[in-house]
Amino acid sequence: MDPVSIIRKKRDGEVLTQREIKFFIDGIGKNTLPDYQAAAFLMATYIRGMNRKEARFLTEAMMNSGEVVDLSGVSGFTCDKHSTGGVGDKITMIIAPMAAALGLKVPMYSGKGLGHTGGTIDKLDSIPGFRTTLDTDAFIQSLRDIGIANSMQTETIAPADKRLYALRDVTATVDSIPLITGSIMSKKLACGADGLVLDVKFGNGAFMQTEKEAKELADWLISMAPVRNIRVSALIDNMDDPLGYKVGNALEMMEVIEVLKGKPVNDLVEVSIAVVSEMLFLSGKTGDVKTMAAEVLSDGRALEKFREWVRYSGGDSTVIDDFSCFPQAASQLEIRLNRGGYISGIHARKIGEAAVYTGAGRLTKNDVLDYGAGIELHVKRGDRIETGEKVATLHFGTPRRPVNEIAEMVQDAFRLSETPVSHLKRIVSIIRP
Amino acid sequence: MDPVSIIRKKRDGEVLTQREIKFFIDGIGKNTLPDYQAAAFLMATYIRGMNRKEARFLTEAMMNSGEVVDLSGVSGFTCDKHSTGGVGDKITMIIAPMAAALGLKVPMYSGKGLGHTGGTIDKLDSIPGFRTTLDTDAFIQSLRDIGIANSMQTETIAPADKRLYALRDVTATVDSIPLITGSIMSKKLACGADGLVLDVKFGNGAFMQTEKEAKELADWLISMAPVRNIRVSALIDNMDDPLGYKVGNALEMMEVIEVLKGKPVNDLVEVSIAVVSEMLFLSGKTGDVKTMAAEVLSDGRALEKFREWVRYSGGDSTVIDDFSCFPQAASQLEIRLNRGGYISGIHARKIGEAAVYTGAGRLTKNDVLDYGAGIELHVKRGDRIETGEKVATLHFGTPRRPVNEIAEMVQDAFRLSETPVSHLKRIVSIIRP
Repeated sequence: MDPVSIIRKKRDGEVLTQREIKFFIDGIGKNTLPDYQAAAFLMATYIRGMNRKEARFLTEAMMNSGEVVDLSGVSGFTCDKHSTGGVGDKITMIIAPMAAALGLKVPMYSGKGLGHTGGTIDKLDSIPGFRTTLDTDAFIQSLRDIGIANSMQTETIAPADKRLYALRDVTATVDSIPLITGSIMSKKLACGADGLVLDVKFGNGAFMQTEKEAKELADWLISMAPVRNIRVSALIDNMDDPLGYKVGNALEMMEVIEVLKGKPVNDLVEVSIAVVSEMLFLSGKTGDVKTMAAEVLSDGRALEKFREWVRYSGGDSTVIDDFSCFPQAASQLEIRLNRGGYISGIHARKIGEAAVYTGAGRLTKNDVLDYGAGIELHVKRGDRIETGEKVATLHFGTPRRPVNEIAEMVQDAFRLSETPVSHLKRIVSIIRP
Repeated sequence: MDPVSIIRKKRDGEVLTQREIKFFIDGIGKNTLPDYQAAAFLMATYIRGMNRKEARFLTEAMMNSGEVVDLSGVSGFTCDKHSTGGVGDKITMIIAPMAAALGLKVPMYSGKGLGHTGGTIDKLDSIPGFRTTLDTDAFIQSLRDIGIANSMQTETIAPADKRLYALRDVTATVDSIPLITGSIMSKKLACGADGLVLDVKFGNGAFMQTEKEAKELADWLISMAPVRNIRVSALIDNMDDPLGYKVGNALEMMEVIEVLKGKPVNDLVEVSIAVVSEMLFLSGKTGDVKTMAAEVLSDGRALEKFREWVRYSGGDSTVIDDFSCFPQAASQLEIRLNRGGYISGIHARKIGEAAVYTGAGRLTKNDVLDYGAGIELHVKRGDRIETGEKVATLHFGTPRRPVNEIAEMVQDAFRLSETPVSHLKRIVSIIRP
């Protein structure tokens, strides 16, 4: 078997065997195949596609290119959650303590943000002292001790994906369903959980633009479950508007705490309850899982679990009761619209991009974050505003663009209607195998 | 303009602009683009193709990635010849002195052999002392002084092609008409000649398997002429059987000299006269060019020009009159068939591969050649042989495989028929713009 003949086969639109895919991906993971052969393989795969069986072989080979975390020593049902990325998506920090308070074990490897979608690690890093890098032993211990473990994905997980992921960006091979599937699922399956709830988003702030595309991706992702024989469900989730009111690292953590304290931020509550219900369902829990999820949030148990998580992770838990302990942006600017009416949409991508320019996100990998920076919305779709009413506040220190330009981007994100508009429903469907 | 957007455009089957192709190829030539982007571009181009206009932009950009030799100071019509590669193809060494003796100027950059097709440089290197590397000044001076200049292609010619050519081999993107066209024609156009005769071969010993494919390639190659506004013709040439009787470096040089001395090796004479006639035609010569070509071969003028070429190049011209001055293989083995009949084919590729194993060719770039090694055929298609008659002689020193295996490969190349078979006609057509 040789790499050129495998590339040739895919180039000609043929179906690759498990042995061929394994041989190629092993070479990628072990660095015995050069980048140019990986790039040719990616382009051939992008154009010719893969069937489900090939995608499963790809996912399996990528998963096995590194460590597969062994969580068998952790009692109870271990359940991971993955979001395909959105704007203001702080759901992880809400659902982890909710699920753990309900007895589930929540192991999660996360990443840093790049571009208009934020990263869970950056948000947790905005809590002074919070440890976001755990080795495998510490990860498992955290799961045993408090029911939650969240760490920056280590180098040992799916190294073949790490290499291919970096190459896809620079070879125009990003938006390929089989390649996306292999990338997401190899990492998630390597994390060793018994179950996985996928939050597959669509809309202008998401990777997938339409509900149809999101459903197709979800279907592919779910169909990889047999690779490690785990239970997987997917929520299909609208990401046309930002999730919640706050976008930016410390700002989002504050909103997480507000929700855990009972603030009725409708969309965050809707999605969080849906995710936790699905986690309970996957764990085999019978009964009214939705009510269980709602109660653990409303009765304060989730907040206490969150406090435990922050303390266990070395974080400064005084932030929970005193938001002034969070990093603060140096300046604020109120944003008003010279129009009035019903808000019919707040373009998530534009808000996400504007947030990057405030200093909350990265344009390139090495950009330094301003944890206090970001955008606070004061209204949501469906709300009625008067001309000149304050709709948002910019938080910034040394922004990446002139502040007036960022303000214009935010203003430009708002769409108004003269007639009443309903609130945005987030979860449009749940897909199970 | 950025490389990823250009790759993406070709990936999606769109037509690239001249600016885009120039930008990408400049990056390849100047080493500012990495191999993996080149590989992705090659695969996208392989699968999606290019139209003639794109191929012209590609050829032009690749040509301009390096030196374009200025032959304007050389008087007379300068005419190059290029073969797409065959087995026993020693035509260059016959036609160069023929054409030069007729007053044409013959500038040629050649390469070394790899795999079953030999290289002109290796054949000339088998003449003791012959210089096969000339810098541009020496190249032009040789052309002025004797009407012939042949050199190993320098590093300065089409460096973008050098990089892409090496990558194509290892990324399964070799047999793409636009990429082949860009590669061949960028180099040939960079050599600065006024005219070019292409010898496009088809058959089992050639790159193109069928006459139809060879004609298509020839049509593409010819259509690149406007890039430097030169005159180009193509001969379509059957390469099912080896050309002439001898395959191997010194062996082929001996056969060149035999033909120049008047030995009627039909196929070599046929192709040589066709090439030189076409060179004369391109130069604007009127009258019976075929007779002119035939006469310069038969009356000894081409032989004298060859002798002048060898001496001018520092080669030992005593080889012309005494073949024992050529490198000799240590051993010979006669090959006989245990069958009889009319020879209906001598599989060129098998003979070429067997010759590589004798030590006459390279399996990998760094293999050292045995200049005396190779295969001498004693019969041609159409000849009648008796059972046990000698059909070939192996010449070898330290072969790359056991000699009995090589002998079997040669035996296996012979096809016999019970009924008479005609000789192989080589030139099936001539294509002009």
